[in-house]
Amino acid sequence: MKKHNFSAGPCILPKEVLEKASQAVLNFNNDNLSLIEISHRSQPFVNVMDKAKKLIEELLEVPKGYSILFLQGGASLEFLMTPLNLMKNKGKAAYTNTGAWAKKAITEAKNIGEVIIVGDSSDKNYNYIPKGYKIPSDVDYFHCTSNNTIYGTQMKEFPPCPTLMACDMSSDIFSRQINITDFDLIYAGAQKNMGPAGTTLVIVKDEILGKTSRKIPTMLDYKTHINKDSMFNTPPVFPIYVSMLTLEWLKKLGGIKEIEKINQQKADLLYKEIDNNPLFKGTANKEDRSNMNVCFLLTDNSKEEIFNNLCKHAGINGIKGHRSVGGYRASIYNAMPIESIQMLIEVMQKLN
Amino acid sequence: MKKHNFSAGPCILPKEVLEKASQAVLNFNNDNLSLIEISHRSQPFVNVMDKAKKLIEELLEVPKGYSILFLQGGASLEFLMTPLNLMKNKGKAAYTNTGAWAKKAITEAKNIGEVIIVGDSSDKNYNYIPKGYKIPSDVDYFHCTSNNTIYGTQMKEFPPCPTLMACDMSSDIFSRQINITDFDLIYAGAQKNMGPAGTTLVIVKDEILGKTSRKIPTMLDYKTHINKDSMFNTPPVFPIYVSMLTLEWLKKLGGIKEIEKINQQKADLLYKEIDNNPLFKGTANKEDRSNMNVCFLLTDNSKEEIFNNLCKHAGINGIKGHRSVGGYRASIYNAMPIESIQMLIEVMQKLN
Repeated sequence: MKKHNFSAGPCILPKEVLEKASQAVLNFNNDNLSLIEISHRSQPFVNVMDKAKKLIEELLEVPKGYSILFLQGGASLEFLMTPLNLMKNKGKAAYTNTGAWAKKAITEAKNIGEVIIVGDSSDKNYNYIPKGYKIPSDVDYFHCTSNNTIYGTQMKEFPPCPTLMACDMSSDIFSRQINITDFDLIYAGAQKNMGPAGTTLVIVKDEILGKTSRKIPTMLDYKTHINKDSMFNTPPVFPIYVSMLTLEWLKKLGGIKEIEKINQQKADLLYKEIDNNPLFKGTANKEDRSNMNVCFLLTDNSKEEIFNNLCKHAGINGIKGHRSVGGYRASIYNAMPIESIQMLIEVMQKLN
Repeated sequence: MKKHNFSAGPCILPKEVLEKASQAVLNFNNDNLSLIEISHRSQPFVNVMDKAKKLIEELLEVPKGYSILFLQGGASLEFLMTPLNLMKNKGKAAYTNTGAWAKKAITEAKNIGEVIIVGDSSDKNYNYIPKGYKIPSDVDYFHCTSNNTIYGTQMKEFPPCPTLMACDMSSDIFSRQINITDFDLIYAGAQKNMGPAGTTLVIVKDEILGKTSRKIPTMLDYKTHINKDSMFNTPPVFPIYVSMLTLEWLKKLGGIKEIEKINQQKADLLYKEIDNNPLFKGTANKEDRSNMNVCFLLTDNSKEEIFNNLCKHAGINGIKGHRSVGGYRASIYNAMPIESIQMLIEVMQKLN
């Protein structure tokens, strides 16, 4: 049975990417060697790394003066690397608190310096994006989370920022156009729109580094990885290769401008059903609704088992909501075809 | 043409492992979903993680009281995590300096506390393993590197240790029997005998943790990962799965006792040729020769081009020595079949 994969991450990847990745594990580059058994310093893999970087440069229009890195440790390690690299000694930073991941980022930063919370939606279980806050100009940087996977909220605009802007874009990078020059540091775990779990994308403006007197441990210093082209130590070869394939697919499809349109159509379709169908209701504030993670509840919980069974029989996979919100979460990342969303809508309409 | 893959790491993996891994990228567990697009919290992947841990427990006879973790960041991040977790505030540790990786471990530890070098082979470009040194009993731990990939040396015995013993086993874990209870912390990047690049194995004795008053950042605290069964954040799904397959292969083959015998035979064969063939000479001190990385030089450098061409035509891949030693390095990890070593010997004998 065909599966409709609504997983929040690791998540759906394009079929042609999976096919190429599977082939490369057997025989990469027609060299009769597997991708995963060659040296990361061999030319074929150096080419992969270069191509992946070049695709990101092109797709996101990254200007000169920014470095693109493939690291490890996910956003969770970036929660630590951000303050270590950007906070001055005895420095401070402004953070928005918009969900579980933002909160973890705040916790790590607090161990390094002072944290000022400038926008906080914890009062309503993070179901909205705080707005209208003012970022103090005397902080070392401002940090925000562009999309909150668990709660299905997304920043539609970024605030005017009188200081450096750092953003965790793990769950919506490559899904919509952004202006890179608005940001000084962007990071994202690969396992949503970029590739499989196991690598972290970092885009950092070179000139902001080296301004703290703090002694940064080698592996946690962005400059280490910039100086060695993400090859200070053995990089996660397979996740980087599959990311390259996914970015190639995105470019072929028409790039970010095109996928943004498609993502908007997909999200509109599903939210329309949620709003029109009396058996369902959305959990996020309407104007802050994420185009990546669509969170909704049944209005009548007694129908839960029936709905779950309908989903199962339709091959719908991974739509259980996060325990802190409950209900359902349909993650509709770049690689999710519109047909899968239509199938989900069909099932929602079958429920009565 | 069949390739004989002597890469130092990422390196050769068993053919059946590559085939199963390739298949799982298309359709894992017959669920019509790829391994790399399912949630790491889904039962099929939780089973992978559990099985990988269980195989390690069995193969290495890990007793109760030790935790087995799959982390990210390679040995390079462990160079930092080791002193962060084990060094007391204003503490000190004893290190052996047996190669480039040991040196990096020392550098990171020095940023955390005091480091006493108890054995040092840098005087002879690391071509031997220091012995007969005494480890002070008042240090927080002793750290050593069991196998030095670049220089082709290997510790055949571990010294009596009056304190905690930490060991970087990246390049020879699972290649020979060790007594886990001699160690308090073992770590290893996967990309030699365990699997592809992208995950780090850590085996740590639980009772040694939590003894420092230092505030350890969440992601660098072993306890974080123990408490969450290596799922504090999204683990590197594919590298862990392929590691599980490789460990399964090793168990089927007869386990560590059996592979140790095979590895000894393979190494003996190649070292015998190096010693008997006047055109070659080994670089490492004989009694310290590694059974994993066999380093050798031509006695007459004018034959370099001919030898390189002979290798190329025989499908021999990845035997260029590290620039700091020069010459050749044949890495003959667990998955390297004896036929490939015989092929290399044949080529060495062809040279005249």
